Amino acid sequence: MTTATTPFLEALRQIVGDAHVLTEGDLSAWEQDWRKRVPGKALAVVRPGSTAEVAAVVKACAAAGTAIVPQGGNTGLVVGSTPDRSGTEVLLSLTRLNAVRGLDAGNLTMTVEAGCILQTLQDTADKAGLLFPLSLAAEGSCTIGGNLAANAGGTQVVRYGNARELCLGLEVVTAQGEVWDGLSGLRKDNTGYDLRDLFVGSEGTLGIITAATLKLYPQPAASLTAWAAVPSLEQAVALLGLAHKQLGAGLTGFEVMGQFALGLVGKHMPQLRVPFLGDDTAPYCVLLENADSESEDHARQRFEQMLEIAFEQGLVGDAVVAENIAQARQLWHIRESIPLAQAEEGLNVKHDVSIPVSRIPEFVAATDALLQREIPGVRLVNFGHLGDGNLHYNVQAPAEGDARAFLHDHEHAINAMVYRSVAAFDGSFSAEHGVGALKVEELEEYKSPVALGMMRAIKRALDPQNILNPGRVLRAAGATPVAHSA
Amino acid sequence: MTTATTPFLEALRQIVGDAHVLTEGDLSAWEQDWRKRVPGKALAVVRPGSTAEVAAVVKACAAAGTAIVPQGGNTGLVVGSTPDRSGTEVLLSLTRLNAVRGLDAGNLTMTVEAGCILQTLQDTADKAGLLFPLSLAAEGSCTIGGNLAANAGGTQVVRYGNARELCLGLEVVTAQGEVWDGLSGLRKDNTGYDLRDLFVGSEGTLGIITAATLKLYPQPAASLTAWAAVPSLEQAVALLGLAHKQLGAGLTGFEVMGQFALGLVGKHMPQLRVPFLGDDTAPYCVLLENADSESEDHARQRFEQMLEIAFEQGLVGDAVVAENIAQARQLWHIRESIPLAQAEEGLNVKHDVSIPVSRIPEFVAATDALLQREIPGVRLVNFGHLGDGNLHYNVQAPAEGDARAFLHDHEHAINAMVYRSVAAFDGSFSAEHGVGALKVEELEEYKSPVALGMMRAIKRALDPQNILNPGRVLRAAGATPVAHSA
Repeated sequence: MTTATTPFLEALRQIVGDAHVLTEGDLSAWEQDWRKRVPGKALAVVRPGSTAEVAAVVKACAAAGTAIVPQGGNTGLVVGSTPDRSGTEVLLSLTRLNAVRGLDAGNLTMTVEAGCILQTLQDTADKAGLLFPLSLAAEGSCTIGGNLAANAGGTQVVRYGNARELCLGLEVVTAQGEVWDGLSGLRKDNTGYDLRDLFVGSEGTLGIITAATLKLYPQPAASLTAWAAVPSLEQAVALLGLAHKQLGAGLTGFEVMGQFALGLVGKHMPQLRVPFLGDDTAPYCVLLENADSESEDHARQRFEQMLEIAFEQGLVGDAVVAENIAQARQLWHIRESIPLAQAEEGLNVKHDVSIPVSRIPEFVAATDALLQREIPGVRLVNFGHLGDGNLHYNVQAPAEGDARAFLHDHEHAINAMVYRSVAAFDGSFSAEHGVGALKVEELEEYKSPVALGMMRAIKRALDPQNILNPGRVLRAAGATPVAHSA
Repeated sequence: MTTATTPFLEALRQIVGDAHVLTEGDLSAWEQDWRKRVPGKALAVVRPGSTAEVAAVVKACAAAGTAIVPQGGNTGLVVGSTPDRSGTEVLLSLTRLNAVRGLDAGNLTMTVEAGCILQTLQDTADKAGLLFPLSLAAEGSCTIGGNLAANAGGTQVVRYGNARELCLGLEVVTAQGEVWDGLSGLRKDNTGYDLRDLFVGSEGTLGIITAATLKLYPQPAASLTAWAAVPSLEQAVALLGLAHKQLGAGLTGFEVMGQFALGLVGKHMPQLRVPFLGDDTAPYCVLLENADSESEDHARQRFEQMLEIAFEQGLVGDAVVAENIAQARQLWHIRESIPLAQAEEGLNVKHDVSIPVSRIPEFVAATDALLQREIPGVRLVNFGHLGDGNLHYNVQAPAEGDARAFLHDHEHAINAMVYRSVAAFDGSFSAEHGVGALKVEELEEYKSPVALGMMRAIKRALDPQNILNPGRVLRAAGATPVAHSA
């Protein structure tokens, strides 16, 4: 078998070396999305080793009019970083750009390349006695470039913000193959438009992030985790307010989990010993994390004091504070096992929505009632980052019957009902996962025409050839979506 | 005297009412910039009373091809919100849009109109038992719309970020006179490009901010202020690192002041009783603020513990912690009086620069030496928000001689030396004041051509007629600047 070649592929090989232009063999690690829903086919997988090589590849693609799909760890959930089926798109993998260019402890920053694995960066900060707080389920394989391109969220947003808030500067290769050196360790810089935040969250459609300067924080002296049974979502929201007031910036995590979601963990992973499982007086449980700059004793005292007030106010029925790090990890592990438990239970429809925190109880009550009325037998798996108003409001097929047929018949209707309800409560149909190819139609339906018009104008201004991740986030009028959400 | 009129002015009067289109009398409150350096002349001062009226005014201006200069409290320092001298620009004052549309304590947000005075918003939050932390010298007269358009900084940035970080959503009138309702109380929303942060800091050149949804925080239980004498800037930076580590998010303010700056306060405002004034072993003093979610006792104990460590490490020579709010206010008052003391002393050249915190000592040493060598007699007034790497590195004319002649001869050279040094240390020539009309040439000189190219493309995409604050931030190639910095 000979290696496919064309003058264009030869040009790419000249830039990155033969070994880094892949056209043969099993390329599914790059061509298929994380959830394996949409197989793609790339013209080539190209793996540049430096920013200059990324720029040269983009210039070659621009000259040839070839579309580029940038990819980091390929852990995204909205089919935003895999090629379509056409075999005409270049898959540009950033994973070889994985150097930590520098860490400036005095400035509380580090400058890193896009292909660095998130966990590696957490470790790098840790070794310097500092904290890089971005944390999410895929941290062992996702890359910081992807995190920034998708504005990743995760479990520490209530205190530290999303990936956007953790980024001070970027290096970006433009659609013309120019390099913008916007790497800045500055906390204040009002010199023109905020290009940084425009690229963050643009999902590779406006430019290719090749490096970033990130914020670091002092490590807390202690971090404690508690698990509390709450009588209702209203009380969970009130508990959040109390925790904000009592713990201030010490509150670093606030997760909520419905009993049905926890029941799936109990059923499929009984070894995890879910606290308050099956407690009828606790339709929801919350997981709280309190970080303290003083000491573990102080953290514990503050936490117990807060929970005592919560108990007196009837906001929690019962609660446990983890005695040690192993116990804390176990509690987080339960929370993080919900998606896997859901998968064990069978097919389901996932949502990643956000609602103003104060309206969440009303939203859930209304949407639960609507779905139960319209689609008999649905089972609601509700959990998420309540501190940020972010719910993974998922829908499991009925316990009995053909789940595949159920999804085929109802997924589209379920999505429409959930997203319309979200919109009615001033929420977002995609809180932290982004748009990718999967939610292009939702963007068109739920975003205001004024906002869409401005986004399209910006896309045309920065990528007039439409070669960067085309069809993702925005598509040309009338174009077929690269992938559908239902 | 008859009132000037044209069909265009008549159209404006139809929209906002006769009383709110001003063309006669003393309009200097709108036409002249805050520092009274650049008198302007408007075609008319137009004062719409609602977002719909703003939109209608913009449509009328777009139809007539008339430039619009949006203005809030007119407290900006870079001549970004006053008309040029041509008499052809409409000055659009947003001050009548001053409603607080709502406060959602459960969501920790409030939605307010652009013309609300910053202090009014601080008070509104306070009355609800919450904190809106944006705080700066002009808070009694600046508006939140201006704060957002300029991405204001101030004294609490080390903990809460700039105006950008305090904003969750915007309502904006576009250059076409459309209304974008991007008011969102969501902490996570990944549905397309970050238009919000593009408008924040764009100084009225991309759209007109008419309302915003802002983040609120729980009020701290106590907030304490300390004043410490430090032996050098190196030690001030080390003290900042220690304060971050010991106080965590409790550290809400960290200001630095050179002895010469403090000496001017001591000389012109002797009643303020500056601590450690004239202490040769304390070339710098720092002002620290520690907010605590627990209690005043706890705040004091933590603060004193931190200062004790700092003393042991030789980072501070001496320190006082304010005993009560009156003392704390007095310390802040000293810090805030430096600009006025400078003005009393005579003419001076102001800079608002930022540098990575870790490089500040080296930057100051190098730049001090350069200026003292090149321009004999210069006196350096150095103070600022060290916690954010933001220095107001100002230059006072020599004590003897004609200050006006000195500025005439040297201002341009001083600016060039300071800004080149800033660039050499990877800093920014405008940390929190913006670009306006005053620093357009600096933007062209110090920003990368790639960044400038993208900014111009975005400006053309969103305001193709170039009617929104034209010539501010960016100017057409070859156009004369509206105002110069020197």
